[in-house]
Amino acid sequence: MVTGDPATTYLTRHRPDVAVVGGGPIGWAVAWRCATRGMRVVVHDPAPGSGASHVAAGMLAPVAEAYFGERELTGLLTESAGRWPGFAAALTEATGTDIGYRTEGTLMVGLTADDLAEARRLWAYQQGLGLPVTPLRPSQLREREPALAPRVRGGALAATDHQVDPRRLVPALRLAAEQAGAVLVAEPVRRLSDITAGVTVVAAGCGAAALTGLPVRPVKGQVLRLRAPDGGPPGFRHVIRGYADGAHVYLVPRDSGEVVVGATVEERSDLDISAGAVLRLLRAAVDLLPEIAEYDLVETLAGLRPGTPDNAPILGPLPGHPDVIIAAGHHRHGIVLTPVTADLITELIIGGGSADPLLAPFRPDRFADLPDVVGAAAAGSTSQPATEG
Amino acid sequence: MVTGDPATTYLTRHRPDVAVVGGGPIGWAVAWRCATRGMRVVVHDPAPGSGASHVAAGMLAPVAEAYFGERELTGLLTESAGRWPGFAAALTEATGTDIGYRTEGTLMVGLTADDLAEARRLWAYQQGLGLPVTPLRPSQLREREPALAPRVRGGALAATDHQVDPRRLVPALRLAAEQAGAVLVAEPVRRLSDITAGVTVVAAGCGAAALTGLPVRPVKGQVLRLRAPDGGPPGFRHVIRGYADGAHVYLVPRDSGEVVVGATVEERSDLDISAGAVLRLLRAAVDLLPEIAEYDLVETLAGLRPGTPDNAPILGPLPGHPDVIIAAGHHRHGIVLTPVTADLITELIIGGGSADPLLAPFRPDRFADLPDVVGAAAAGSTSQPATEG
Repeated sequence: MVTGDPATTYLTRHRPDVAVVGGGPIGWAVAWRCATRGMRVVVHDPAPGSGASHVAAGMLAPVAEAYFGERELTGLLTESAGRWPGFAAALTEATGTDIGYRTEGTLMVGLTADDLAEARRLWAYQQGLGLPVTPLRPSQLREREPALAPRVRGGALAATDHQVDPRRLVPALRLAAEQAGAVLVAEPVRRLSDITAGVTVVAAGCGAAALTGLPVRPVKGQVLRLRAPDGGPPGFRHVIRGYADGAHVYLVPRDSGEVVVGATVEERSDLDISAGAVLRLLRAAVDLLPEIAEYDLVETLAGLRPGTPDNAPILGPLPGHPDVIIAAGHHRHGIVLTPVTADLITELIIGGGSADPLLAPFRPDRFADLPDVVGAAAAGSTSQPATEG
Repeated sequence: MVTGDPATTYLTRHRPDVAVVGGGPIGWAVAWRCATRGMRVVVHDPAPGSGASHVAAGMLAPVAEAYFGERELTGLLTESAGRWPGFAAALTEATGTDIGYRTEGTLMVGLTADDLAEARRLWAYQQGLGLPVTPLRPSQLREREPALAPRVRGGALAATDHQVDPRRLVPALRLAAEQAGAVLVAEPVRRLSDITAGVTVVAAGCGAAALTGLPVRPVKGQVLRLRAPDGGPPGFRHVIRGYADGAHVYLVPRDSGEVVVGATVEERSDLDISAGAVLRLLRAAVDLLPEIAEYDLVETLAGLRPGTPDNAPILGPLPGHPDVIIAAGHHRHGIVLTPVTADLITELIIGGGSADPLLAPFRPDRFADLPDVVGAAAAGSTSQPATEG
């Protein structure tokens, strides 16, 4: 480390109460919550906000993303989405920043009869969980969104599925955390044993695997960013999620004119943009909303979601290391899960390890036979460098 | 101008014989030819090689591009394509540079029966002009290019339609010209009357309009650059040009693994990349060559071709200004027309205005009632700044 650097000086003078590894939305939100509770907090990240959140669309969609076989995850998503209005309001009040939080709701649509049949099965499952899914006739769909293609056969409204702009959210969270006293150390963490702090929170996304031995794997997603022509806003207001000839696509409109179109889900870890993925996303988007063809294509980008074996996040103490708390593996759900993660992890730290029952299904010890990467590294053996998210 | 700059010093000491406005392929080729004939040459361009040639695919395709109603242009394209082997050899010998000149030929294909019917009418026209178009059965097509989609209904070979890499060509031409003594002045030219030289050659692409009053208009083209996966070469060797469900597309494979996919032809002058254009190009490309879906999309770019009212270039003296020679308006054909343009313009300068009969159909004076932009500017009135190509 460079002597004289303010963060280093801070670390030398004050052993932090909490060290957060990873300056993405989860990391900064934990840092913000902990700092406002009076803890001394440092955040370690060589490039804050440059991970999965930079690529993410920012859908807050516990209803539309309630999939078969993920009931416990759906519960956590719903809980966190319920905390989003207060979280957004508090963040905007603390920072004066517009984070692009919008509440027009989400339209789920099917292009063909086959697409609609597939979608309806999922909507029935979601309604069976008591989630607010309102089927709409084509005429009702078009009343809400006249820009939808006339071919669209049917849809449903998830009125409580909202959105936020992750590229505004993360800087706002960082600002809030720093205003509350958190300090950034813009350097990579190679081993957790290098950190001196009361508690270490691992919010390093895919980087958590190398740091902890937990089964977090990169899941590639390719995403497009378009811009409505002539500097205007997009010609639709809802988040649109749909099936179009078997392809799944979402479109997230922003006040700025930006539309995020995503996303592939690929079990690979490169960041290449493939012609086929761009073709499939654009084709599905234009099939559902023909005006998209007139939009500018301004960005093609791939990111790596931190996936886990059961698609659910890993939240809680690392087995054998009660002072290491994991807040990682959020997969497709990092943005929606930010409030509940920050709240529960902060309470866990304050409570000295006494956990909210909400955390029970997501504890790290559900993955048996972990290698003790932290202990081995502390004992002096080598470990792989970790990339933080 | 900055005093002490070598180019400025050169200009102060030696009045050039030839000033070329525009450092694209035409400008540098003229400069090279003139410099090797002993003339003192300067080339004016603030950003050489950054115009249409940076976007161009580099097809040398007088046969495939022989369209109805363009017989005189087809003659010039054929003449220039015939000069390309010698031109490429001389350039490679002069510079030691690989310019990506490839002679595998061009396959013209039709995806559907409708596409094939449309293509066959054009091939019949081309054969009627005596051009070498060889119809191929689907089995013959697939023998030549096994990567073609099984759906492709038929095709034809234009064995003499070759390719070159414009991004290698222009630096090689510049190197050859500079080795022969040509000097770059990397500043924009606002008025031709600011130039002191025996002869001024306007090779400024779209910029020729503002400098001369000639009817050169920007015609937008959007082009994609892909890369074959895993660092290998593309899975096909010929240039592929085809119709796919009514959409026209070409694919140009390079040894480096690059594939250029183009191009839109749009009567507009912005450089935005539109979602619809990318979708149509990718869909047509993947329809013809399915493996393209696996390629990386590495660049989306738009350029402006210098179009003219009859789609043919403007070559020869500017009416009323025998010391101003135009070599502009090459539209889609700048790369293939580079050798013949350089030869004819150089001979015109050496011959003191005595023109090769080949130039007759392309003289600037075919456009009547030109405003005298050059004379007016010299007389002190203001003019718009020109962007060189």
